[in-house]
Amino acid sequence: MSTINSTINKQLTPVSFTEVKLDDVFWAPRIETNRLNTIPAEYKMCEDTGRVAAFDLKWKQGDPNPPHIFWDSDIGKWIEAASYSLATHPDPALDALIDTVIAKIAAAQQPDGYLNTHYTQVEPHARWSNLRDCHELYCAGHLIEAAVAHYQATGKSSLLNILRRYADTIDQTFGVEEGKKRGYCGHEEIELSLVKLYHATGEQRYLNLAKYFIDERGCQPYYYDQEAHARGDDPAKFWALNYSYMQAHTPVREQREVTGHAVRAMYLYCAMADLANETGDLELLSACESLWEDLCLKRMYLTGGIGPSASNEGFTTHYDLPDLTAYAETCAAVGLVFWNHRLLQFEGNGKYADVMEKALYNGTISGVSLDGQRFFYENPLASTGKHHRKGWFDCACCPPNIARMIASVGEYMYSQGDEDAWVHLYAQGQARLTVGGKKLTVQQQTRYPWDGTVDFKITPEQAFAFGLHLRIPGWCQRFELCVNGTPVDSASLSVNGYVKINRVWQAGDSIKLVLDMPVQFVVAHPNVQQMAGRVAVQRGPVIYCLEGVDHIQAPLDDIVARADVPASDQFTHEFQPDLLGGVVVLRGKGMLSPKLNWDNSLYQFIPHLSQQQTPVPLTLVPYYAWDNRAPGEMRVWIRTL
Amino acid sequence: MSTINSTINKQLTPVSFTEVKLDDVFWAPRIETNRLNTIPAEYKMCEDTGRVAAFDLKWKQGDPNPPHIFWDSDIGKWIEAASYSLATHPDPALDALIDTVIAKIAAAQQPDGYLNTHYTQVEPHARWSNLRDCHELYCAGHLIEAAVAHYQATGKSSLLNILRRYADTIDQTFGVEEGKKRGYCGHEEIELSLVKLYHATGEQRYLNLAKYFIDERGCQPYYYDQEAHARGDDPAKFWALNYSYMQAHTPVREQREVTGHAVRAMYLYCAMADLANETGDLELLSACESLWEDLCLKRMYLTGGIGPSASNEGFTTHYDLPDLTAYAETCAAVGLVFWNHRLLQFEGNGKYADVMEKALYNGTISGVSLDGQRFFYENPLASTGKHHRKGWFDCACCPPNIARMIASVGEYMYSQGDEDAWVHLYAQGQARLTVGGKKLTVQQQTRYPWDGTVDFKITPEQAFAFGLHLRIPGWCQRFELCVNGTPVDSASLSVNGYVKINRVWQAGDSIKLVLDMPVQFVVAHPNVQQMAGRVAVQRGPVIYCLEGVDHIQAPLDDIVARADVPASDQFTHEFQPDLLGGVVVLRGKGMLSPKLNWDNSLYQFIPHLSQQQTPVPLTLVPYYAWDNRAPGEMRVWIRTL
Repeated sequence: MSTINSTINKQLTPVSFTEVKLDDVFWAPRIETNRLNTIPAEYKMCEDTGRVAAFDLKWKQGDPNPPHIFWDSDIGKWIEAASYSLATHPDPALDALIDTVIAKIAAAQQPDGYLNTHYTQVEPHARWSNLRDCHELYCAGHLIEAAVAHYQATGKSSLLNILRRYADTIDQTFGVEEGKKRGYCGHEEIELSLVKLYHATGEQRYLNLAKYFIDERGCQPYYYDQEAHARGDDPAKFWALNYSYMQAHTPVREQREVTGHAVRAMYLYCAMADLANETGDLELLSACESLWEDLCLKRMYLTGGIGPSASNEGFTTHYDLPDLTAYAETCAAVGLVFWNHRLLQFEGNGKYADVMEKALYNGTISGVSLDGQRFFYENPLASTGKHHRKGWFDCACCPPNIARMIASVGEYMYSQGDEDAWVHLYAQGQARLTVGGKKLTVQQQTRYPWDGTVDFKITPEQAFAFGLHLRIPGWCQRFELCVNGTPVDSASLSVNGYVKINRVWQAGDSIKLVLDMPVQFVVAHPNVQQMAGRVAVQRGPVIYCLEGVDHIQAPLDDIVARADVPASDQFTHEFQPDLLGGVVVLRGKGMLSPKLNWDNSLYQFIPHLSQQQTPVPLTLVPYYAWDNRAPGEMRVWIRTL
Repeated sequence: MSTINSTINKQLTPVSFTEVKLDDVFWAPRIETNRLNTIPAEYKMCEDTGRVAAFDLKWKQGDPNPPHIFWDSDIGKWIEAASYSLATHPDPALDALIDTVIAKIAAAQQPDGYLNTHYTQVEPHARWSNLRDCHELYCAGHLIEAAVAHYQATGKSSLLNILRRYADTIDQTFGVEEGKKRGYCGHEEIELSLVKLYHATGEQRYLNLAKYFIDERGCQPYYYDQEAHARGDDPAKFWALNYSYMQAHTPVREQREVTGHAVRAMYLYCAMADLANETGDLELLSACESLWEDLCLKRMYLTGGIGPSASNEGFTTHYDLPDLTAYAETCAAVGLVFWNHRLLQFEGNGKYADVMEKALYNGTISGVSLDGQRFFYENPLASTGKHHRKGWFDCACCPPNIARMIASVGEYMYSQGDEDAWVHLYAQGQARLTVGGKKLTVQQQTRYPWDGTVDFKITPEQAFAFGLHLRIPGWCQRFELCVNGTPVDSASLSVNGYVKINRVWQAGDSIKLVLDMPVQFVVAHPNVQQMAGRVAVQRGPVIYCLEGVDHIQAPLDDIVARADVPASDQFTHEFQPDLLGGVVVLRGKGMLSPKLNWDNSLYQFIPHLSQQQTPVPLTLVPYYAWDNRAPGEMRVWIRTL
């Protein structure tokens, strides 16, 4: 019932990615690769696997390759990604292709508004009979997100109208009112999509329906029990044993511990933040804050990957963060970005931006190859050499998820309010903001994340006073700030991870922010057993790794880092434009010390340097870029003993 | 049902400590301190606390200070220790004092042979009613050990005759025969004492009774259940919940996992080894071998301490070896010595001698102060400064246990057989052995454990051929061996941790063994979570520690060892005769690095050396000698990060 503030302090509104033009060294090329390679490749896979044709409703019982329960969501996410791309880069061919797909979707919609290729063709009499397992509302949610994205990108309401009809059908089917099912989806997604639909249409009932799905979730008696009995199934035979798998074990606003399937959790928490934002629901915000602490202080990989376990694609116990077997699904890291971006808007607390940035530069984009055409589902922090990206997956949630995130990455960079502007992330380009109804442009000139210097030009349409918040990332321990050439004592201005510069801004104003960006060794909390005695290497927001291709001398597990010497004193950093799409490479020395064999001992002597340890040159490359050269080993966490 | 060999290969017989004369730098002064200080101090405590007077049987209901169920065992162990001391150092006053105590014991024996000061006075009608909790047979066992020791030391059968009568009473009370109780003691001890009594008297029935107690233990239906019901108690209310606390949850020969109270476990395993030895019982030996692996590869502290938990004075889970909260009772480490000494006699496998030596030089003798008058019950591997030795304990098992071990430490050093002689431990002095009926003397000249060089003189009464086994300790990675001045290629002679030199030995033969004894860093198995990223320091068999008194600059937990440099390259070693009774002190440098505060983080950067780390001189002293100067912190395991 309590939260940090007695009322929700919602000061920030994201600046749409359509107002953010990037021409930076990092994201702009990725957006282009996403547009040119990823989005077309994913469409081809959707076509080749029957996902597009499924909307033709030509599948008959006995045919091979029945439309799968997930398929509609892949099309939805692909349309969403393609629409975001259209929004910043007009492309008549892509526009037309989307229209073709939308025409198929329109044709597949049933007279009552229902829209699901699996149920309509494969199980026509089983609609809404297994919300727990069968992703019906999840697919609807992704189609709704697609429809809103398409409408906002193109102004066309073709897909939006289809999904409004479907949402109305869903609204008539689910709710607390007499005659309606009191169900909710086993895989959250519909909730956050309905908030988006509410915004796109102004229809309050979509927000109400989102709120119903949130509030009904986890109430007893459990809907999934009743639903199972109605199907003739024994609910005790639910494979995941417990509804905490889908965060439905207890009412949502009472949840304080992150449980179950990681992607489901993220999408639920996004919707909770959305509703807190829309309705001022302090309980939901307070739950989000507790869940954030549970997740980000006890369950998150250094890369922003989350959900260590393959068995439930999700969470286990506190501090259980194995590197080699990390599941850390791409979608879950993407969801972590979505959720932290939402939480960031309440008070502009940099801790949310820190997590968002961590995931953006590491655990999300590791999910796609540099050529944009191969994908990781799992993003472990170590590999014996057998983990490689693939062109597609039967369960293909990750490829279009990373595509939609990259296409809209500008969305995460700025916020605006009545009296303030915020810069959350640094990337060369310019953004148009509106503060208190007045327009301004913020230009950034920087080579971030490879260099910590950012030169700003602030250009309001007319001079006016506002507070400009510049984020000081959590990884940055020292920085300098000048406004119009004059050093600013920024320590006094810092709050919650931002410096706030209050002044009457006028055209021509400039700021120079220099974030000290040394190479640093990272250690994990002592409770993270698997990483005890290991260090990782970070520079700026980028987490580095060792790859086998750079270390043919020995297995990576035989390499020991010299953690007693500061990383900045032993590693050089150099931007190599020709390597891995252009990255800063770190070079230094470690020691070669064969890993001890523990078969018959509880204690062992450390082998003598002179006898068994020899210096070995180390090359560290950004984690996100691994597995883009010769296949081999990888590890983020390096032994120190 | 299986063991490594199809028949028991019992080649070795310990050389009695009465045949081993020590004049070394380490044990001889301890034996003298034990004789002059410890044994008298312990007697005084036994007198002051009423333990001696308890045998006068003058306590009446309503009197204060009723004889406790443990008390007789303390007197037993004291007599045993005093007798061992007499055996190597005649002392008419001590001899007379023991006789006085024996006279009291004789007077306390009941007409039927029963002998227990608690039950006779405090609960006269409750004899043998609670074997599970009340240590009746345990006290009997310690008195029997005392009787055998006294008989062997003095040739007097006064105490032996008393305990034979009591043992006969016990034999008539317990067994599988009709009318006997099928009980066994909750605290093992009687079993191993009966094997000793069998040896001293030649009476087979005592061996049979030991075998009965071993074989009956853990059989179902559980005797402790029946006994509780007979008392009107609910066995389900047993505080320890499970009979694994006293190794009685399953038949002894089926036990493969070390459980429960550590001292009880050790005394049981000793008796299992004794019976395997006496009867050729392969099952019992095989169980011992499995239990040894479970204990010594997964549950043993670096010091030879065992039993990490105070709550059960015993074992928990594999690799659970916390340093600060280690229980590691002195008695348990003493028991570990007893057990490994027994297992060593089967095949002369050095792994048993390694554990025995580890406990002898570290986790046992830490239990007594250098002046011999204060004792540790618990022997943790770290202290915040609040753990100190005491003069006595209400439950006073540890003081006389360490006293009897030190008084007879020569017992662990040599073995003899039909064709071979073994030197297990190195200490200056001489020993008289009998090999194949022929006598010889082995002289050692050495400053072990402070120096690894040992000069031997072998003097047979007449020249004859035998194999001389010299132990190469597990801690030693390089050694040199010369026989009569000629280097020997010892690698080809090494087996199971010993070099075996076969020749016709004659008077004047000499051997020089040089064990390389560098300072070494030790790391724990990766599964030992609490010691991850930490190192300990060892030289020879001696484990070292940091003490607060030597490091007033900073809390010990802020000290970081530089494990990337070999310990031998960064620590000097120097014998200081005036420090801690004469020890080798190690001196070197570490770094001062304040421990990170993890309240609000899951990952942190390592602070920069230049900013927050400064070199700090380190002084390491032997662990066993800690808490003999100004009180303060202590730790064995030092951070490396």
